[in-house]
Amino acid sequence: MSGSITGKLFRVVNFGESHGPAIGVVVDGCPAGVPFNNDLVTSDLIRRRPGQNTFSTQRKEIDEFELLSGVFEGKTTGTPIAMLIRNKDARPRDYEAIKNTYRPSHADYVYDKKYGFRDYRGGGRSSARLTASTVMAGAVAKMMLQEVSTISVQAFVHAIGKVALPEDFDYVENSVEDDILNCPLPEYSRRMQEEINQAKHNKDSIGGQIKCVVTGIPIGLGEPVYEKLDAVLASSLMAINAVKAVEIGSGVRAAIMKGSEHNDAFVLPDEGDQLRTSTNYSGGIQGGISNGEDILLKLSFKPVASIAKTQKTVTADNAATLLKVDGRHDPCVVPRAVPIVEAHVAIALADMWLWNQSSKI
Amino acid sequence: MSGSITGKLFRVVNFGESHGPAIGVVVDGCPAGVPFNNDLVTSDLIRRRPGQNTFSTQRKEIDEFELLSGVFEGKTTGTPIAMLIRNKDARPRDYEAIKNTYRPSHADYVYDKKYGFRDYRGGGRSSARLTASTVMAGAVAKMMLQEVSTISVQAFVHAIGKVALPEDFDYVENSVEDDILNCPLPEYSRRMQEEINQAKHNKDSIGGQIKCVVTGIPIGLGEPVYEKLDAVLASSLMAINAVKAVEIGSGVRAAIMKGSEHNDAFVLPDEGDQLRTSTNYSGGIQGGISNGEDILLKLSFKPVASIAKTQKTVTADNAATLLKVDGRHDPCVVPRAVPIVEAHVAIALADMWLWNQSSKI
Amino acid sequence: MSGSITGKLFRVVNFGESHGPAIGVVVDGCPAGVPFNNDLVTSDLIRRRPGQNTFSTQRKEIDEFELLSGVFEGKTTGTPIAMLIRNKDARPRDYEAIKNTYRPSHADYVYDKKYGFRDYRGGGRSSARLTASTVMAGAVAKMMLQEVSTISVQAFVHAIGKVALPEDFDYVENSVEDDILNCPLPEYSRRMQEEINQAKHNKDSIGGQIKCVVTGIPIGLGEPVYEKLDAVLASSLMAINAVKAVEIGSGVRAAIMKGSEHNDAFVLPDEGDQLRTSTNYSGGIQGGISNGEDILLKLSFKPVASIAKTQKTVTADNAATLLKVDGRHDPCVVPRAVPIVEAHVAIALADMWLWNQSSKI
Amino acid sequence: MSGSITGKLFRVVNFGESHGPAIGVVVDGCPAGVPFNNDLVTSDLIRRRPGQNTFSTQRKEIDEFELLSGVFEGKTTGTPIAMLIRNKDARPRDYEAIKNTYRPSHADYVYDKKYGFRDYRGGGRSSARLTASTVMAGAVAKMMLQEVSTISVQAFVHAIGKVALPEDFDYVENSVEDDILNCPLPEYSRRMQEEINQAKHNKDSIGGQIKCVVTGIPIGLGEPVYEKLDAVLASSLMAINAVKAVEIGSGVRAAIMKGSEHNDAFVLPDEGDQLRTSTNYSGGIQGGISNGEDILLKLSFKPVASIAKTQKTVTADNAATLLKVDGRHDPCVVPRAVPIVEAHVAIALADMWLWNQSSKI
Repeated sequence: MSGSITGKLFRVVNFGESHGPAIGVVVDGCPAGVPFNNDLVTSDLIRRRPGQNTFSTQRKEIDEFELLSGVFEGKTTGTPIAMLIRNKDARPRDYEAIKNTYRPSHADYVYDKKYGFRDYRGGGRSSARLTASTVMAGAVAKMMLQEVSTISVQAFVHAIGKVALPEDFDYVENSVEDDILNCPLPEYSRRMQEEINQAKHNKDSIGGQIKCVVTGIPIGLGEPVYEKLDAVLASSLMAINAVKAVEIGSGVRAAIMKGSEHNDAFVLPDEGDQLRTSTNYSGGIQGGISNGEDILLKLSFKPVASIAKTQKTVTADNAATLLKVDGRHDPCVVPRAVPIVEAHVAIALADMWLWNQSSKI
Repeated sequence: MSGSITGKLFRVVNFGESHGPAIGVVVDGCPAGVPFNNDLVTSDLIRRRPGQNTFSTQRKEIDEFELLSGVFEGKTTGTPIAMLIRNKDARPRDYEAIKNTYRPSHADYVYDKKYGFRDYRGGGRSSARLTASTVMAGAVAKMMLQEVSTISVQAFVHAIGKVALPEDFDYVENSVEDDILNCPLPEYSRRMQEEINQAKHNKDSIGGQIKCVVTGIPIGLGEPVYEKLDAVLASSLMAINAVKAVEIGSGVRAAIMKGSEHNDAFVLPDEGDQLRTSTNYSGGIQGGISNGEDILLKLSFKPVASIAKTQKTVTADNAATLLKVDGRHDPCVVPRAVPIVEAHVAIALADMWLWNQSSKI
Repeated sequence: MSGSITGKLFRVVNFGESHGPAIGVVVDGCPAGVPFNNDLVTSDLIRRRPGQNTFSTQRKEIDEFELLSGVFEGKTTGTPIAMLIRNKDARPRDYEAIKNTYRPSHADYVYDKKYGFRDYRGGGRSSARLTASTVMAGAVAKMMLQEVSTISVQAFVHAIGKVALPEDFDYVENSVEDDILNCPLPEYSRRMQEEINQAKHNKDSIGGQIKCVVTGIPIGLGEPVYEKLDAVLASSLMAINAVKAVEIGSGVRAAIMKGSEHNDAFVLPDEGDQLRTSTNYSGGIQGGISNGEDILLKLSFKPVASIAKTQKTVTADNAATLLKVDGRHDPCVVPRAVPIVEAHVAIALADMWLWNQSSKI
Repeated sequence: MSGSITGKLFRVVNFGESHGPAIGVVVDGCPAGVPFNNDLVTSDLIRRRPGQNTFSTQRKEIDEFELLSGVFEGKTTGTPIAMLIRNKDARPRDYEAIKNTYRPSHADYVYDKKYGFRDYRGGGRSSARLTASTVMAGAVAKMMLQEVSTISVQAFVHAIGKVALPEDFDYVENSVEDDILNCPLPEYSRRMQEEINQAKHNKDSIGGQIKCVVTGIPIGLGEPVYEKLDAVLASSLMAINAVKAVEIGSGVRAAIMKGSEHNDAFVLPDEGDQLRTSTNYSGGIQGGISNGEDILLKLSFKPVASIAKTQKTVTADNAATLLKVDGRHDPCVVPRAVPIVEAHVAIALADMWLWNQSSKI
């Protein structure tokens, strides 16, 4: 499984399984001299954590991370930054039941086929628990971006099931951190909570959408023709568990638009300002390169595959069986995925920012 | 612009500008012993070529390619396969007008900012002409996949503007090559042609959608956690000019689905057969790894930015100006993009196929 | 410092500093199904360890490693294998003296210049302590090679100062593990020990040479033209601390040889055997590809820079000063470097073995 | 053969076979704005060319290169720079004789085994002709280094057979370009010519050594722990055909030195100057990072395997045969390799220079 490393200059190495001794991450390539913000790592881990409210799984994952290397006297040294989280709530016995049973729309079957066998405890390497490692690396990326640029990455819940914010609501003026669902509009948040409760009541799960807005982005990030900024972001975001669609700017709506509508007209700048556009259907990226407008991203998440309903399935020995997953799972992971989305975007931008340093002499 | 190389084991190197001496591609990492099919390269180039019908640009690009290396006595040798296309229809004088003018929603402005200056002739490196290089590499990927697997990659036009095939039409039983728009259903094709004619009549352009179906895929392609098969495909597809959204399986619809609907139930296989699923909302990929079901992809294309209508814009010197692009451009590039989509997918799959050889001992 | 990851398919990620909380390594890309041999990791760590005899530094580094991920029920799972060693013997106060002093022929000065500052405790990231991480990864590489091939990697001390084994002594018939210096010929070992004692007595240090022989190598490893097997090995070996020369096969002697001497004549094989050569000046690699003969490598190590003699040097503030390094350092690190050399070679071969799987269909 | 791409940010892609239609190179990642110097490419190609004097092969390779992309109005645009050389002097019939015969110490046998078959014409992909592609890329690297730094790379012949310059002769004050052997000291050049003539007279070949000195190097190039500058250079240099040893600074002599001799003492700098060392046994690299002193490299080349003497060998069918290579081959390639060495070093330094831009904020 050699796909656990991402990035070219700002490189992130993800390791660990859901029920092994520990999970962790190594960030290699963060420049020296970035102030290391422990609290940012912790707060992003808390935002990602299940069990923090009724809408998430009941398991307690107290994700205290340990910083193992790469920071000296409060600053990054340019050496690999390793961070570790011990797995505490491991109860292997819980998973004996699924040892030989393939859960529908999980990775059990493909792991068995690809690797010959699998660590079946809690999903092993395919567990969403692994996203905690990415979140830690994302916090480092945010620290770096804050130090070298004005880039700010903010994600929020756009839709839960059929409850969606207005399509043109792209900007986060107030923090979403106070909202239990990471949704910026309280009246929508309430309706989304109902949607989730309904799913839970039905022993079912529900999908949703997250938007992510990047502000303060410099012009020039992205490397045509195969590592365009939108391509790199799409790769990074589609790697998040449960994501089935990635849209940039106008997204799927682009298909029904006319060129005269979709073209983002340039606006004469004031003296000293940079060129801006009057609309942003491009989503901040043209020809694969950031143009300084906000980057607008939208992700669609499938509903969680682990549902409390009894499902028919098959065993590793090709026998029919019934599967009843215990009730600790989230009926909707979208709210928890907000810091994960931010982490993936921040990591990609940190990498492309470093790469762009070599574009001209 | 060091993003012109893609792939890890099956590597593709794209070079050339729209109006330079030549464009070309180098494929490094294709295994030795693959029969080289000249006709496949040519036919894919013809499918991509503008000027072949009234719905595409009037420029004649007779894309005769030259094979420079990597093939001996009709077979690949394991050495880099270089292919070249001379640029014949270069008329630099046509582009003097846009030398200092930034076309809306083109890459002119960002190239100037990123690189300090740009080759403004015909879009230079940001031209869609470059896709011919990718199409040649894609043909090599198809040759390889045909030799080592049962994988077949077929794309088709799903929508032009608001004219869309039925959502559940995923399979290509008859070749789309006879259709002028690469659309598998003639009655829809006719309506799509009207949509394009309408846009042309209005000196405008129109967007659309392409679906791509991969059949015969082995179980196991994809490398969690950052190079999942869907992540790699998303990156590859979002790198195609004008693509604004990439969906896999259920795509954006996933967001409003319940887990009990979305889960793909396993079906007990007949003796000796492999496990299948009764639905395919996963789009052939679970946990980032192919599960043997067809891979289902959908792309949304924005309308072409080059329209015949006069547009307000600005110059490199921050002066207001009017832009009137000459009428040779396609009002809709979606039909021509069908072989490009296939090429991107085939290249990604060839690479992931090779990578997967090392997953177990 | 983004150079802490090596390899293409069998990837090794090294992290940690000499006096931070821990050092460790992540191996990403080891195929699933390889039996994990804890004892091999431990025994290679012990061979590398200083303090095991009078010829090495007095510091006690009890390198107990912890396996954090990637192994389930005794076998590798195809997921990243993370291993950790806590730093126990950290005494930061010992290093206050060199905080602002640049030790001659150490990395203090260049780290300060490259990164703006440095973790000065025990050499920080430039410490030879980091080689323990590589040794752990090397043990994993050895496990894999044992499972998939007949490859065996054996290094031994060839020379300490002017005491050198006969030049044509290339083969290890008996284990060197019984010898305190990892030298296969006891009579030479005794003279080498005297050489080291002499250096120690003089408060000085002494260089030496290690040879490494790879047997059982399949034909075909190596990827021309830039990742030839000899190039990959040279890179890997020159990355070892204190190595100043890497030779393959005939090495420096090649320069004074005639073609008629140097050419390795093919020998008609017996029925069913593979083609062999009567000599092996090529060192098992021709045209960058292994030819099945033993791979013969020789490395020259400079004497340790840390010597007990008082040396003149300068401070970070450009003032003259005297430096007296305490006496805990090895007068000769060459014997301890034997398992390090093996690790570097095994890692490179594991990677090239996997890569070679894609050379032909 | 997917090893034809080297570099991380300054990437070089080598393609072509000795007797195919063309050879060439693509440089991806050269920053925009570097003045492109056609004459430098041509002069380095001429220096590499065989047939220019009696000491080299009689084949005429008029290597006129064509620039295909990446340069506009005399400057690099940041896009891939592709360069092509047509193969003119291809006479396939000359090579029928070796179609089924394995030449000793050539790559014929290993290519057959690795790839299943080979392009046997003139060595195909293993031909030294390919070095022309690297030399073109090296010229681009030199252009870039000249623009962004004071780095200068100069190689020269140090030894032919047993005729060697004084060991401490490291600096090139006068150009070696006037010397037929690229040797800086005329009296040694004459003796070297005799050595070559002697080998030729004996229908034999002879090895030799090249030194390369890099001046004007900034402090900080190199990325510990696996991509140290010396490791990267060793990889690059060992990839050159016929190289069997790479030494840095003290090289093999390091093994017999004492620490007190080998340590490079710091010298108090004059006001405003940078810190220097009084000796340079480190060869300009400490802890894997350049320290600002000249980088000192030495390479040992084996004698050419193609000799005019009749040799016993075997066929692909395991039959004994006699091999008589025609007399057009160089008895010594070392003089021609001087620009090749410079190219490899310049490419590696260009890449590491770009990489180092991201070491600190």
